[in-house]
Amino acid sequence: MITLASDFGSPYPAAMRGVVLQRTDARLVDVAHDFPRQDVRAAAFWLRETLPYFPPAVHLAVVDPGVGTDRDVLVVRAGDHALVGPDNGLLLPPARHVADDLDVFVADPGAPASSTFHGRDVFAPLAADVHEVGVDALGSTDRLAPTDEFVDLELPTASVSDSRAEGDVLVVDDFGNVVTNVPGDFLDGRETVRVNGDAVPVGETFAAVAPGDPVATVGSHGYVECDVNRGRGDDYFGLAPGDEVTLD
Amino acid sequence: MITLASDFGSPYPAAMRGVVLQRTDARLVDVAHDFPRQDVRAAAFWLRETLPYFPPAVHLAVVDPGVGTDRDVLVVRAGDHALVGPDNGLLLPPARHVADDLDVFVADPGAPASSTFHGRDVFAPLAADVHEVGVDALGSTDRLAPTDEFVDLELPTASVSDSRAEGDVLVVDDFGNVVTNVPGDFLDGRETVRVNGDAVPVGETFAAVAPGDPVATVGSHGYVECDVNRGRGDDYFGLAPGDEVTLD
Amino acid sequence: MITLASDFGSPYPAAMRGVVLQRTDARLVDVAHDFPRQDVRAAAFWLRETLPYFPPAVHLAVVDPGVGTDRDVLVVRAGDHALVGPDNGLLLPPARHVADDLDVFVADPGAPASSTFHGRDVFAPLAADVHEVGVDALGSTDRLAPTDEFVDLELPTASVSDSRAEGDVLVVDDFGNVVTNVPGDFLDGRETVRVNGDAVPVGETFAAVAPGDPVATVGSHGYVECDVNRGRGDDYFGLAPGDEVTLD
Repeated sequence: MITLASDFGSPYPAAMRGVVLQRTDARLVDVAHDFPRQDVRAAAFWLRETLPYFPPAVHLAVVDPGVGTDRDVLVVRAGDHALVGPDNGLLLPPARHVADDLDVFVADPGAPASSTFHGRDVFAPLAADVHEVGVDALGSTDRLAPTDEFVDLELPTASVSDSRAEGDVLVVDDFGNVVTNVPGDFLDGRETVRVNGDAVPVGETFAAVAPGDPVATVGSHGYVECDVNRGRGDDYFGLAPGDEVTLD
Repeated sequence: MITLASDFGSPYPAAMRGVVLQRTDARLVDVAHDFPRQDVRAAAFWLRETLPYFPPAVHLAVVDPGVGTDRDVLVVRAGDHALVGPDNGLLLPPARHVADDLDVFVADPGAPASSTFHGRDVFAPLAADVHEVGVDALGSTDRLAPTDEFVDLELPTASVSDSRAEGDVLVVDDFGNVVTNVPGDFLDGRETVRVNGDAVPVGETFAAVAPGDPVATVGSHGYVECDVNRGRGDDYFGLAPGDEVTLD
Repeated sequence: MITLASDFGSPYPAAMRGVVLQRTDARLVDVAHDFPRQDVRAAAFWLRETLPYFPPAVHLAVVDPGVGTDRDVLVVRAGDHALVGPDNGLLLPPARHVADDLDVFVADPGAPASSTFHGRDVFAPLAADVHEVGVDALGSTDRLAPTDEFVDLELPTASVSDSRAEGDVLVVDDFGNVVTNVPGDFLDGRETVRVNGDAVPVGETFAAVAPGDPVATVGSHGYVECDVNRGRGDDYFGLAPGDEVTLD
């Protein structure tokens, strides 16, 4: 199984699919191709929250603002999974959530036909080759060299005390739900919470409040989310990815 | 085969795909994940018009404004098909179009990890399990209990006489075509029809009129549609889902 | 393997998938369903640049402003591939890029259930049937008749001298990159180029210039593109599909 994720929109992912299918009969599964453009942190978050739900697979992930520069091409083994993508930090947060034991390899990028579409010309054929080699045998292929030097990325963590949490907005989802990095248990036992000073009811579900009303919930990722029932939390709270958020 | 449909946008459906693939090797086919948000009626319409074209399959469908409340979790057997989703009416219109003989079951929802993403935590594993059990054996699984009590939903029907039809706009499609619930044969033998009072030519195809001109056609669902050739019918006619429409 | 491409948006492609899967177990792969609406030239370009990356397959492609008129239904054999779609020129540019040896057939459209959704009622069953018959056996099926009369389409080519190129904008991609039809080697050895009179740096990659700055690159299709690093080239340059562009 090979999963595909990118910020390529459409129809560029189709060329990746074709290239992969030239080299393997593996099942292909799309994760998403509409990650926020060239936003490595947001894509790393979504991959971290999604890839652990998959059975062992090769995960091709391309959000690559440095395409065509001399940034390296990485393969990260995480347990029975392998992640393939650019050396810009993208792969590390999801790899660490998939498994505890990681090996990082630098791959020979070959001689890509283009300098602007390495998803098609570098990463897709590499992901297919990694699938055919098998995750267990990555250490024995000449094309991959173990490395300790790679761009790492840690998603920011919130500072939490009993009465106050200072965190960041990680992403805003398609529904407009504002996903923070404050662990959900901060809401335990509270009926209201102040979000950047404004009191908001705490609810277990969107439907805990009337349509159009704001609610602080524990989202499906386990973090505090600032939502509006049947509305957009980002508009209501005036929050965007990267913004600071204080709960008390 | 398992089909997937939701109003989740992206990338949430990927977690559902992963959860399903942890439990089954079934082929996955996306129906759509951009149904109008939390609009059970629109989603029921699209499922009704789409699922009958599939071979026997398990159809996972999640448009669920009541996620996290105590609404039930349903499995509907319709002939050789099974539909899995929330108990809010969503599954009944498509089930009745797939087959005449239906059995409705309430499923044990288990202990979902989240209260806001039952697509991933309840419905996806259930759909995989239903697929593995097999549609014929649903009655013999402990996890499902036959029920006569469920939320039903009937899409509205038009009131039609020889000279006049009073109906509703069911949905507006991506092209801007306004799909009504007036059966297409109302247009038989007519060259023009008045849509809420404005005369519009009747055409067999969009191309029957000049680009930018309005046309009343029999759409691919068999209903009267109010369209504009190479334009948007909803803008031209000022019609939105739920609006009343009178043809004469 | 059957690939699917259209300008149908969502959820219409799902009905095509179902119809195909009623008739074949072939692997289905989406190319794209958000081609610019009813823009045969843009779709032909994207198919031309994408289908050659696939292994042998049947390619179902529907961008069909004349749906329901008496335009013919074509199957084009291109080497080990077959393309299925309307007779409006759409299939020829990609077919010629897939292989040099082409055979063109007119197909019996049958008696479609609708006059507005031939993707579901004509092209999807035909593509499944072509897949089951096999590309090598197309000449021996009664349903297909060889033809020399079909709508051809040539994408425009640029007029290029050593110092000046006069071309057209073929498409604008999702990133806002303006794809011209000027062959990339026109930029060889140049550090700047004037795009319709405005001097722009030539770069191998988007990252060759600062974020927000314009750059002329050789895109992944081998043509000159007018881009903005982390921005939209179409907005910066004021260029849209079909516009003339002069480089000197």
